[in-house]
Amino acid sequence: MKNNDKITMGHGGGGQLTSELLNSTIFVKLANEHLDKADDGAVLDCPFGQLCFTTDSYVIDPIFFPGGDIGKLAVCGTVNDLAVMGAIPRWLSLSLIISEGLSFTSLNRIIDSIAAATKEANVQIVTGDTKVIESYNSKEEIYINTAGIGFFVHEKKPDIKAIVPGDKIIINGPIADHGIAIMCVRESLGFETKIKSDAGALNSLVKEVMDAELDIRFMRDATRGGLAMLLVDIAEATNLGIEINENAIPINASTRHAAELLGLDPLTTANEGKCVFVVSAEDADRTLEICRSHPLGQKSKIIGTVTGNNKVEMITDIGGRRIITRPLGKELPRIC
Amino acid sequence: MKNNDKITMGHGGGGQLTSELLNSTIFVKLANEHLDKADDGAVLDCPFGQLCFTTDSYVIDPIFFPGGDIGKLAVCGTVNDLAVMGAIPRWLSLSLIISEGLSFTSLNRIIDSIAAATKEANVQIVTGDTKVIESYNSKEEIYINTAGIGFFVHEKKPDIKAIVPGDKIIINGPIADHGIAIMCVRESLGFETKIKSDAGALNSLVKEVMDAELDIRFMRDATRGGLAMLLVDIAEATNLGIEINENAIPINASTRHAAELLGLDPLTTANEGKCVFVVSAEDADRTLEICRSHPLGQKSKIIGTVTGNNKVEMITDIGGRRIITRPLGKELPRIC
Repeated sequence: MKNNDKITMGHGGGGQLTSELLNSTIFVKLANEHLDKADDGAVLDCPFGQLCFTTDSYVIDPIFFPGGDIGKLAVCGTVNDLAVMGAIPRWLSLSLIISEGLSFTSLNRIIDSIAAATKEANVQIVTGDTKVIESYNSKEEIYINTAGIGFFVHEKKPDIKAIVPGDKIIINGPIADHGIAIMCVRESLGFETKIKSDAGALNSLVKEVMDAELDIRFMRDATRGGLAMLLVDIAEATNLGIEINENAIPINASTRHAAELLGLDPLTTANEGKCVFVVSAEDADRTLEICRSHPLGQKSKIIGTVTGNNKVEMITDIGGRRIITRPLGKELPRIC
Repeated sequence: MKNNDKITMGHGGGGQLTSELLNSTIFVKLANEHLDKADDGAVLDCPFGQLCFTTDSYVIDPIFFPGGDIGKLAVCGTVNDLAVMGAIPRWLSLSLIISEGLSFTSLNRIIDSIAAATKEANVQIVTGDTKVIESYNSKEEIYINTAGIGFFVHEKKPDIKAIVPGDKIIINGPIADHGIAIMCVRESLGFETKIKSDAGALNSLVKEVMDAELDIRFMRDATRGGLAMLLVDIAEATNLGIEINENAIPINASTRHAAELLGLDPLTTANEGKCVFVVSAEDADRTLEICRSHPLGQKSKIIGTVTGNNKVEMITDIGGRRIITRPLGKELPRIC
């Protein structure tokens, strides 16, 4: 009984357990019109306009990994949260919690990475904070929080409530690279050189899609909990269903192979550079074309369709049907 | 030699070592017109107005203490950073990094405290994030980041460059209660019931001072590094000096006594509800009057004067002169 009162690693996995944690604490006690939306960020009416505000803390382990590091992730993740809200990311705050014993060499490498990522994403770090905590092991550790502010330049904002049956689901490339890259390092699988995290800033890709004034209903980056988590979230929020085709879902062969070895489901594995677009059937092909013309979307695919049946189903390679549910969250702690 | 490459607890103390850490990494690699100011927050020109943006992570140990807890601190600290920038705090983000094993009972107590503090400070938590990390000890631990957005309603903004010799230094009450309360708990000194942290939101006090349209040159809350750190910062930024009178500095007797037992200097000890106002000589008495009429400023005092001599000096109780320098930062880790 007593253990039920304790928070576990699974509560931070971004799955069912995280939802339960938030629903039983934060969302009850701090409820307001903004938090209630449980979006990637808040759309706020200022005295003189509208802005988008978001935050994320990054606790990824290891802090350096193929394809990136915690610094790059901290910039790209927050930039992406603003972008999928339909905002143009502009300013970030940067708050470091450094575990004593981190080397200046590592810190400098991380800050260099942050500098490069902000330049690439065209955002600015404008305010910050630094704290140091005791270390209880010999690992180099740092936690990074970035909060972000963006502005809206497009008249129409993505709105999950605008989704209707028949809408198409597009993803901008292969899934699960981030989570599998991290797990390969953690398990010392030796796949390090092949599988790279997809950590990247999606704001320029998203902006090109938004600029085309297509009928984009909704966008969201598929991070913790993977594509499965995101699709279940959409189905629940809309009271609709989603049918995806397994053979349409892009995945790199080495990632698929490593996932099998690790016993992980790519569908529930984290991404850090993948956006799902829900778009009207009429505008799906045009959206796909724009995505594919962007360096971060060359392998974009239409992977499924919104249905009216209240569940997320995958038509498998061999023609079967698999019900997709929200992952529990225990599988991949500290993946971002 | 190798140890010089490692970050130590002292680098997080908010003193000289923290300054060196920031100056050698962040401020070099991420330099821009906002970060260069090294203010408590950034003043940002939006497409349609101006806002203030700030962030702080809270790693205080213990997470519950006389007079507050990490949740209250996380709200009040960020609210205060916006307030002393001259902004009206409005929205906060809330990002939790929970150490596994934290009880739901403790989490709920912290979230309740956050809810109460936001209500009292009249701000809203509008977006958030939750992560969980492994625990390597049996302590209940949580780290909290809040970023904050505020707006300016007063025509004049405080500006450290506006300070001139002859200006008066006012503080809104007794110093060192926060740091000494924490250290009493850590050292199990048994002073717990007497000494309470001054953790509190100063925005209503600051607004009353601002509303009076007095000649307030500059405001800053004296947190890590205490009053000493703040005064040295002001002297360095202005190329001026400050002379304070030891017998004018408010301090509670029990706090002074505990500080002696602990071997700590109240001047360099953290506060979490103390603001220093630098105000023109003509408006000093009126500012003092307004501060004293506020519940959080009843013990306000004029403690010193800005001078032209480039150093911070304290006239001691017995008439001597003591040069005040920036504390190193090793003394009080994880004080906020």
